[in-house]
Amino acid sequence: MKFAKIPMATINRLSIYMRTLQELLEEDVEVISSERLAKQCGVNPAQIRKDLAYFGEFGVRGVGYHVADLVNQIKDILGLSRTWNLAMVGLGNIGSSLIRHGNFVKHGYIFTAAFDVDPQKVGKKLPNGLIVNHVDELEDVVRERDVHIGVIATPAGAAQSVANQLILAGINGILNFAPVQIQVPDCCHVENVDFTIKLDCIAYHLSTGV
Amino acid sequence: MKFAKIPMATINRLSIYMRTLQELLEEDVEVISSERLAKQCGVNPAQIRKDLAYFGEFGVRGVGYHVADLVNQIKDILGLSRTWNLAMVGLGNIGSSLIRHGNFVKHGYIFTAAFDVDPQKVGKKLPNGLIVNHVDELEDVVRERDVHIGVIATPAGAAQSVANQLILAGINGILNFAPVQIQVPDCCHVENVDFTIKLDCIAYHLSTGV
Repeated sequence: MKFAKIPMATINRLSIYMRTLQELLEEDVEVISSERLAKQCGVNPAQIRKDLAYFGEFGVRGVGYHVADLVNQIKDILGLSRTWNLAMVGLGNIGSSLIRHGNFVKHGYIFTAAFDVDPQKVGKKLPNGLIVNHVDELEDVVRERDVHIGVIATPAGAAQSVANQLILAGINGILNFAPVQIQVPDCCHVENVDFTIKLDCIAYHLSTGV
Repeated sequence: MKFAKIPMATINRLSIYMRTLQELLEEDVEVISSERLAKQCGVNPAQIRKDLAYFGEFGVRGVGYHVADLVNQIKDILGLSRTWNLAMVGLGNIGSSLIRHGNFVKHGYIFTAAFDVDPQKVGKKLPNGLIVNHVDELEDVVRERDVHIGVIATPAGAAQSVANQLILAGINGILNFAPVQIQVPDCCHVENVDFTIKLDCIAYHLSTGV
């Protein structure tokens, strides 16, 4: 499916709606009103209706949404009715803990490659069975293992060079945990996860009482 | 300082500008044009000027910004000319790796308390010197150690109950790593870090080619 000009905030919220609906599904909830779904997602019901309206008509007036159907419809919209292969670059503190985290597999994201430069780590077997490759092998391994998304968890100083290598290997999606802004061509989409930027937002709220 | 109705996206970007300026400072850059700063931050120059304009006049026309001054001015705006005390709740995979992460201290965020429910962990000393307390002691310890911000890294099922305890202990700022939306009163500000939601946004871009 291809939809033009959907705000990133809408995509972000669709993902949150889907997560919440998946939890409801685990609790055997079959139908939910937009009011209750909105409350659980921390938005207002009009927002949910507006976000979904970009993609068609969902739900039944006066009844609500069929939970399982809406999960599948949002999966189709987001491109999640399939799995995605990830490569982890950087097996320090954060990288090692992320690669062990069950939440990735649960949502269809599978690590199929892992890289580092440390001779103590290269060649070692990770708990998920992957053997760590040297970053010098990145381009070949990424192509062989059909990696779709690169995850950067290197120190800040190495992140740009790793991003360049990923892009050379044909990767167009990067999740960046390194605390630095990386520059990529327009064809590549980067999402940054910087915990301290989130803390700065909290500090601002606490300071100003907003 | 108190400024009304500043968009959250502006606060978020101010934090990114500050991080970039701090890197420039480490490279002994004294003055930077808004064009170059914008490029390094991945925004356009007009965006930087607009974001800063909420808070006053910054920079010198035709010259640019004095890097050290602008860092201090943004620190004042965000409430970062001081340190903030954090409590980590949940010392699993992610919690343990976060509490060891140097980036928090570097930016003035100090873990002064850590909690878990696992008898194997409670009473143990962490690499940063903290002794792990049981979650049952949360309210007392949070007050004694002057904690300002709670960091939740528990399994999804425990996150709401931990949030309730933090709020009872007087906490108004929460950084939530648990993959679940938590409900808090209006006085409390929550920022969520869910890696898989970021991946969903990347998957959407890769699927649609947007």
